[in-house]
Amino acid sequence: MDYYKNRTLTFENSYIIEGYTVAGPKENDGRYKGFFDLALNDDMFGQNTFERAERKMFEHAIDGVIGKANLENGDVDAVLGGDLLNQNVSMSFSARKQHAGFLGLYNACATYAESLIVGSCLVSNGYENVVCVAGSHFSTAERQYRYPLELGVLRSPVTQWTATGVGATVLSNQSAVGVPKITRATIGRVVDYGIMDVNNMGAAMAPSACDTLVTFFRDTNACPDDYDVIYTGDLGKLGSDILLDLARQEGCDISSKQHDCGASLYWDEQQTYQGGSGAACSALVFNSVLLGRLRRGEYKKILLLGTGALMSPTTSFQGDSIPAITHLVEVCI
Amino acid sequence: MDYYKNRTLTFENSYIIEGYTVAGPKENDGRYKGFFDLALNDDMFGQNTFERAERKMFEHAIDGVIGKANLENGDVDAVLGGDLLNQNVSMSFSARKQHAGFLGLYNACATYAESLIVGSCLVSNGYENVVCVAGSHFSTAERQYRYPLELGVLRSPVTQWTATGVGATVLSNQSAVGVPKITRATIGRVVDYGIMDVNNMGAAMAPSACDTLVTFFRDTNACPDDYDVIYTGDLGKLGSDILLDLARQEGCDISSKQHDCGASLYWDEQQTYQGGSGAACSALVFNSVLLGRLRRGEYKKILLLGTGALMSPTTSFQGDSIPAITHLVEVCI
Repeated sequence: MDYYKNRTLTFENSYIIEGYTVAGPKENDGRYKGFFDLALNDDMFGQNTFERAERKMFEHAIDGVIGKANLENGDVDAVLGGDLLNQNVSMSFSARKQHAGFLGLYNACATYAESLIVGSCLVSNGYENVVCVAGSHFSTAERQYRYPLELGVLRSPVTQWTATGVGATVLSNQSAVGVPKITRATIGRVVDYGIMDVNNMGAAMAPSACDTLVTFFRDTNACPDDYDVIYTGDLGKLGSDILLDLARQEGCDISSKQHDCGASLYWDEQQTYQGGSGAACSALVFNSVLLGRLRRGEYKKILLLGTGALMSPTTSFQGDSIPAITHLVEVCI
Repeated sequence: MDYYKNRTLTFENSYIIEGYTVAGPKENDGRYKGFFDLALNDDMFGQNTFERAERKMFEHAIDGVIGKANLENGDVDAVLGGDLLNQNVSMSFSARKQHAGFLGLYNACATYAESLIVGSCLVSNGYENVVCVAGSHFSTAERQYRYPLELGVLRSPVTQWTATGVGATVLSNQSAVGVPKITRATIGRVVDYGIMDVNNMGAAMAPSACDTLVTFFRDTNACPDDYDVIYTGDLGKLGSDILLDLARQEGCDISSKQHDCGASLYWDEQQTYQGGSGAACSALVFNSVLLGRLRRGEYKKILLLGTGALMSPTTSFQGDSIPAITHLVEVCI
């Protein structure tokens, strides 16, 4: 047996003060219609490129969550997070508008969960307010990772649909009434089961989700029944099924608790096949639906597992498999 | 005057246990010849692509620093850092070999300083040992950011040369005798002076270096004379001159203290024009030269400023300017 080291962090004062979401048109036609703070009619968002539209979504989400939390820009110590574009440019360029410090993060679609963990470390080290943010845009991701949109390439039935949206969260070390808090978190390790099919990212990510979940339960002696729900990021339907199987093999039945932000984002008739993917999935669903249910006491204790596939087009062209990572965050009210 | 908020973090227990460097052939022909733990004769490092060579450099640096610190892989709680490739793949793929958790970071050439700050937060929050790592490779960066190498494009005199190398550091919350520690750090904000010339990154980054340096001095009431040296990451010669001018305008004369990792990396006859650039610069120079001088007591207190330019080829093609960021770390023995 491998030498065992507890990788789960504990936080005393990481309060989730506010969340804000900007969603694309297709996302607001989905299952969570009306849950988002700002829903776009047009995914160009008044810009002349998709990349600038994505950037503007980030700017709106950051300013939006600061305003909704009744803070001024100057009250924020740091903005941290990322997107899926090369060199993290949606995030970096949108951070220009802030006085706050900036940390660029990249763990693909696990970036939102990563930002909550690093943000919790910052507020535990003396920062008062930080903004954690992540997002993605279908049209920028599609042309960067896959094909020009104009080519109209037929999609495989195992694919997912990159969600358009940005979710932002204010974390603070200042408590307030009825505010959920991040109590524990497990930083995932990189897991690679040798999956080569870039259309099937759910299969690549499911083993890493299982690894982090089992690690967390082992580190904390917690079990699935301790939680109202366990939300994964963007495993999609197929990836979720694989996770349930793998977890069962580890003696851990989460079938009655597990939901997937990506798989639940769209209606079947929206033809996304396995559901949504992208850094937006967990950021959108957490900051709208889950945060609302926590605040209303419908959920008392949940797990969010951000799942990410860490390949690039270059690594796939060069014949490499798809490494994956999952970060876990425990949120309680 | 803007509302003012102190952005400088203080760390009690962030010890720099060990550093390890892997340097390319041109780098080991430069001013720091013989200072590196592993110097490559060939920048392909026995691989069939430059990207795989870069990945292997990361793997060697991570394993190297863990071994040099007399740790086992299982003793490390997290590996964190990044590179310059799209989707951070050199870092992510090399992290597959570790049992540790992984956080992918991206602040361009400021990533090494970013990793020291996030790593210090992690060891302050209960992690025992973390590995902070960053690097770059001339031949992967050149073809991703600029032109195919085979094209033989003439370089502008304001350009810098992307350094080939990886530097890795073990941070620990366990003290030991004669070990330097990270005592304070300032997370920089994104500063954009509207520079459009992607060949002149020193000019784009110098204002951000000045901003973070002045912020740190304001936050801490420290002054340049408190430090033996102030090392910037990769401003290059021209960028360093601009920083000295800008700092002087802020009433801060650092001309007798400032050195630049990139500018000092090569001899003039190596024809790098303004010196080295890339995430490797600060990671290489800190983990070889500076760490050695700190341990021998030649330096008692230094500042390291990681400087990064946050554009991508896409943003430059779309007519955007170059945002920049600088993170500052104070190291004392």
